Amino acid sequence: MPGFFISMTNLLKSLTSIPADIVTAQDYEALAQRFIPAPTYAYIAGGSAQDETLAANRAAFSQYVICPRLLRDLSSATTHTIIAGKQFAHPILLAPVAYQRLVHPGGEIDSARAAAATDSTLILSTLSSHSLEDVAAATPANKWFQLYFQPVREHTLDLVKRAEAAGYSALVVTLDASIQVPSRRAQHAGFYLPPEISAVNLRSYCSESSAAAPAKNIFSLLRNAPNWQDLQWLQAQTKLPIWVKGVLHPEDAKALKALGITGIVVSNHGGRGLDGVATSMQMLPLIRGAVGAEFPLLLDSGIRSGKDIFKALALGADGVLIGRLQIYALSVAGALGVAHMMKLLREELEVCMAMAGCSAISDIDTTYLMPAVSAPTIGAVHFSGE
Amino acid sequence: MPGFFISMTNLLKSLTSIPADIVTAQDYEALAQRFIPAPTYAYIAGGSAQDETLAANRAAFSQYVICPRLLRDLSSATTHTIIAGKQFAHPILLAPVAYQRLVHPGGEIDSARAAAATDSTLILSTLSSHSLEDVAAATPANKWFQLYFQPVREHTLDLVKRAEAAGYSALVVTLDASIQVPSRRAQHAGFYLPPEISAVNLRSYCSESSAAAPAKNIFSLLRNAPNWQDLQWLQAQTKLPIWVKGVLHPEDAKALKALGITGIVVSNHGGRGLDGVATSMQMLPLIRGAVGAEFPLLLDSGIRSGKDIFKALALGADGVLIGRLQIYALSVAGALGVAHMMKLLREELEVCMAMAGCSAISDIDTTYLMPAVSAPTIGAVHFSGE
Amino acid sequence: MPGFFISMTNLLKSLTSIPADIVTAQDYEALAQRFIPAPTYAYIAGGSAQDETLAANRAAFSQYVICPRLLRDLSSATTHTIIAGKQFAHPILLAPVAYQRLVHPGGEIDSARAAAATDSTLILSTLSSHSLEDVAAATPANKWFQLYFQPVREHTLDLVKRAEAAGYSALVVTLDASIQVPSRRAQHAGFYLPPEISAVNLRSYCSESSAAAPAKNIFSLLRNAPNWQDLQWLQAQTKLPIWVKGVLHPEDAKALKALGITGIVVSNHGGRGLDGVATSMQMLPLIRGAVGAEFPLLLDSGIRSGKDIFKALALGADGVLIGRLQIYALSVAGALGVAHMMKLLREELEVCMAMAGCSAISDIDTTYLMPAVSAPTIGAVHFSGE
Amino acid sequence: MPGFFISMTNLLKSLTSIPADIVTAQDYEALAQRFIPAPTYAYIAGGSAQDETLAANRAAFSQYVICPRLLRDLSSATTHTIIAGKQFAHPILLAPVAYQRLVHPGGEIDSARAAAATDSTLILSTLSSHSLEDVAAATPANKWFQLYFQPVREHTLDLVKRAEAAGYSALVVTLDASIQVPSRRAQHAGFYLPPEISAVNLRSYCSESSAAAPAKNIFSLLRNAPNWQDLQWLQAQTKLPIWVKGVLHPEDAKALKALGITGIVVSNHGGRGLDGVATSMQMLPLIRGAVGAEFPLLLDSGIRSGKDIFKALALGADGVLIGRLQIYALSVAGALGVAHMMKLLREELEVCMAMAGCSAISDIDTTYLMPAVSAPTIGAVHFSGE
Repeated sequence: MPGFFISMTNLLKSLTSIPADIVTAQDYEALAQRFIPAPTYAYIAGGSAQDETLAANRAAFSQYVICPRLLRDLSSATTHTIIAGKQFAHPILLAPVAYQRLVHPGGEIDSARAAAATDSTLILSTLSSHSLEDVAAATPANKWFQLYFQPVREHTLDLVKRAEAAGYSALVVTLDASIQVPSRRAQHAGFYLPPEISAVNLRSYCSESSAAAPAKNIFSLLRNAPNWQDLQWLQAQTKLPIWVKGVLHPEDAKALKALGITGIVVSNHGGRGLDGVATSMQMLPLIRGAVGAEFPLLLDSGIRSGKDIFKALALGADGVLIGRLQIYALSVAGALGVAHMMKLLREELEVCMAMAGCSAISDIDTTYLMPAVSAPTIGAVHFSGE
Repeated sequence: MPGFFISMTNLLKSLTSIPADIVTAQDYEALAQRFIPAPTYAYIAGGSAQDETLAANRAAFSQYVICPRLLRDLSSATTHTIIAGKQFAHPILLAPVAYQRLVHPGGEIDSARAAAATDSTLILSTLSSHSLEDVAAATPANKWFQLYFQPVREHTLDLVKRAEAAGYSALVVTLDASIQVPSRRAQHAGFYLPPEISAVNLRSYCSESSAAAPAKNIFSLLRNAPNWQDLQWLQAQTKLPIWVKGVLHPEDAKALKALGITGIVVSNHGGRGLDGVATSMQMLPLIRGAVGAEFPLLLDSGIRSGKDIFKALALGADGVLIGRLQIYALSVAGALGVAHMMKLLREELEVCMAMAGCSAISDIDTTYLMPAVSAPTIGAVHFSGE
Repeated sequence: MPGFFISMTNLLKSLTSIPADIVTAQDYEALAQRFIPAPTYAYIAGGSAQDETLAANRAAFSQYVICPRLLRDLSSATTHTIIAGKQFAHPILLAPVAYQRLVHPGGEIDSARAAAATDSTLILSTLSSHSLEDVAAATPANKWFQLYFQPVREHTLDLVKRAEAAGYSALVVTLDASIQVPSRRAQHAGFYLPPEISAVNLRSYCSESSAAAPAKNIFSLLRNAPNWQDLQWLQAQTKLPIWVKGVLHPEDAKALKALGITGIVVSNHGGRGLDGVATSMQMLPLIRGAVGAEFPLLLDSGIRSGKDIFKALALGADGVLIGRLQIYALSVAGALGVAHMMKLLREELEVCMAMAGCSAISDIDTTYLMPAVSAPTIGAVHFSGE
Repeated sequence: MPGFFISMTNLLKSLTSIPADIVTAQDYEALAQRFIPAPTYAYIAGGSAQDETLAANRAAFSQYVICPRLLRDLSSATTHTIIAGKQFAHPILLAPVAYQRLVHPGGEIDSARAAAATDSTLILSTLSSHSLEDVAAATPANKWFQLYFQPVREHTLDLVKRAEAAGYSALVVTLDASIQVPSRRAQHAGFYLPPEISAVNLRSYCSESSAAAPAKNIFSLLRNAPNWQDLQWLQAQTKLPIWVKGVLHPEDAKALKALGITGIVVSNHGGRGLDGVATSMQMLPLIRGAVGAEFPLLLDSGIRSGKDIFKALALGADGVLIGRLQIYALSVAGALGVAHMMKLLREELEVCMAMAGCSAISDIDTTYLMPAVSAPTIGAVHFSGE
């Protein structure tokens, strides 16, 4: 693992041009190790605890293979699609990822510029390291705001109103992160959040109620976690479409639909929540079955290629969110890197569609998938005569 | 494996404070290698023969993942629960483990103190290295006595009466250990029981009938093993609740319930009995199905985390027993270690419940589980350009 | 991997006699590493992208084991068979493989001579490195011509008429290679097509329309890919039987049968197309079910032994195509190598038939197969006492 | 693998006492590497071709775990059993293995003596390296004769009459070895049969008809292989019970039962026939289903322990044959080694029965088995803090 324990003095400076040797979007995952300090890389690449869910997220995509069709007319093929009534140039969104200045000074502003350059939608994290107003001002891209409920309702409401004012066109309420368990990998690597990086959006609300009383036990840590009433309260405060992120159970999906939520992001937080939960991909078909064919569903957690996107769409997603690859590409080449990575992902999806014989996103369904033949480990071929 | 073959002169002294770097209860498993002589560690960590069941016990937990619910009100969440009509602060019991002075001079007395400190129930082994009376006198904790039938009925009865007199509130009759096959690992490591450690409870019964005639064959070694009549005889001798430990077959569970037994510990003796038997976790749902929803069931064999406990409860257990982790923690820091380990386990269970949306032990059921996606081996990510 | 990175100066010269130490046809796979420059070997041995499909192709054969019959009379046993109404000495065809001069100066001419020597049918690639006329002139073997649709219909038609004139007795239209994605392995090895090797059949059509306009996106690269109308146009231009190669989806197979196509080659292009598609072997039984018992089906992608051939025949194939082994054997000993490899494959099939109790190709069906017991990794046996 | 490539000069001399450090019957497998020249060991330990079936044979046993019963009365427990109407002290037979003098000068005579010492039945191979008469004269043990059909019927008949005359009490006709494919392992190790070891039983029949005409192809090699008429002819020549060995297909089992055959040995020749066939253990329940509960069935191929024997009996076998362990033990300590190994196997079976709660061989059935939980590779536990 010589490439992994790079000392910080050997880290490369972020590039100002597209890096050589990058052939696929996923190539940024390895290359980023040269641009991100090892403890920070461990934090980003890691999931939670023993990283079981992190591994399962990838394995879930390997459960399916693609069964292509031949001789289809692709003359009008396109990735354009409609999600929750809105037009998108492609179904690939930039996921909300906290503290992006950890890997590049441009941080969320650079990601937002890349969104504009690639006709992508940016979802800005509540925990962004540039303010939601600064990010909005920096880009004409379509923007959604990811909302964490704050311990005090007025603060939550203030965030919503600021997002509305800054031009964010939807809210994405994350509900699966009430307790964050760090990965052993990040713990061993010694990651900590440096003092110059902070959740600037929350600066004016801080150090008040949440630390009021010491916690009696784990449950009391959650006394401010949102419940169904909080979500209904939020619906009454804004006209913005509300997405809920972090759904895995079909019963929750049904209840959220019944409540009038705009759509759902099927997600296990990229394996960063409770280690050992179900994968988005295994729950997706069950959730699609529970909410019916028309209800808007996005998916994240584990996507690394256009082929992964194709499989998620085939199982019922309307679009996908890209988290880690966004950060890796940001670390390598800022806005340019993120834009290049998104271009590669879109092209990989186009190749998949073309090879499978799909000329529209809405064509992609389960008839293009088959269960994978389990692959035993197959060693390299060598001449045994010596 | 540099950490494994530590010579005894390098062993650390048992700590008198909570060790640094322990983040999860399972961390004691690795740390204990610095406090226990290698042959003894091999004996404790090993199972039987080739350790197939030992490995299967762990794998059985990996067959399931958790499917959490969102937005639940956790304001009255608690681990308090009722097992066989008694109130427990949490469903985590200290399993009977023989000869605890092997790893710490405090032995079972320290484990008993830890039970008191963490509102846990201690199950003391017949083969304890402190006498059942001394252990009882040392702690106000709730205590059960694990009973091995002795070759002579009077000795068995004497044990029962002593346990009653000392304040043990239930008997746990272990039935799956008629023949112990050591693990190859312990054999290779050269483990033997040192002369200063012995089954003090049995001192007054020893060297009499069991070695009377040389064994003709394997079966004759078992001529004193208990049968159904012996169990019924025991029921007539005591008013204490009687649990039976070591049950794997649903038909045996049904017969024991019909006999009026208080409850069952689904167990394969932590993989220390016949190597190659079924796992507790695979049999648990079948046994729950056989005895109905209300019959008390505990489970052991393979539990290393709060997540494992959550899965056992979801599949039908009312509580679990903790064996090896108890010994590992005892070796590291005596009563303090065991108490710390139990606190961590309980918190891990609380985290699981909170993240899954369960506010009571009785909420935890199969609707929170999904079969795991099989995870292919996924290598670490490295930059391949060098 | 000392044998793999052989420098070109150490490469062996192609042999003029059958190599020693070759016991099975697959042995040519390893031996060829001594005769083919490493980058070229990587290109040939590799599939596409991460080689997932390449590995799955092999794994698919491991899903089945053979269940033999006893005491059968084999006195009239034979591999002779009828495919699409024609007599074949055995069901093993030489697959179309491009640019065979890459590994041996004899190239496709040597493969054609080997076909004649072993009563095999040669399928010549459109991208052959000897002209289709030269290959035809060099051998009396039965020959089919593999056709890639050209961007200009007149060129496609010219190829067809030249094939007819040269004596090719069938066309094999490949439809699954609209976009070729190289394998990472070949990319890393630095493979490129040397200037002296080219698609000589296409020399007179080149550099005209296909590069006319720069591509707008991936889809526009495919504006000349054939569709159903193109295939029907081809049917009207020739009386030769037309096979379609690259079919994986049962619905496509049904449609092709309905169109009057002679037969189908179930294939994923040896894992060289879109990485992550279904395997030929997993789709074969579904395709056989879709087209009925009589429709001619061939299969390729992953075959390395007579046992593999037996399994493909049992699942519904009428014959198989041999690609990589053909090239490996060609590199080692030219026509002699290819002929030897084909003789070994046929003998391996004969051994399989004999051991399974089949005296005719048409006897081989699913009653001779069972699902394989999954094999855990089993280490070597060593004496642990030292 | 330092223990494997022992040069012959370092080989140990066969012992005259039971070796130390042998705890289980399977331990002879590793220890034998010190007593058998490496090429010969490779030949014995290997199966055929790539040894796929050899590995699958072992894996097939791992598909099941044992689900024990409690509190059973074992006071009259015994391994005594009836097979095909005859009384056996235990259901473990010594399989026919050719050329036993390869590993010990005592060869088959020593194995026969061990059979007598352990109340076992010996099955002598047609290809024994001591004559069937000498073996019979050396031991009072129950003996069966394994028969290979000879190219000339008179020779086959002569063998049968000699076996009758020498006191063999049954014939075991092996039918699955028409073509032997050596294992790559044995080929690489350079094994050959030394001239001083030969099939002495066949000395008077040799070098006559079988090499008459050179083989035209693989099938013609089999022109003398037995068919159904040959088997019926054999039935008419002898009053000895006739077992057929090498059956895997349930349809063959049914046909053999209909023919009046005494019983069947479900076997894939220990993985030494066609590599890639079904395992005995996977076919056993299907064959038991096909022939009904009463028809005598034996099994071999893969048994290494009493636990394996228990599983075979549970799935429907009446007894098992021990091949490789017999040879390993023979190499280590001659008759004494074989007897010791058989004693260990029987004790291991007794332990299994006792722990499972079975007091008779006929008690052992499928209610004692469960499918195994698939075990992921679980690494050793180490302290990660250093």
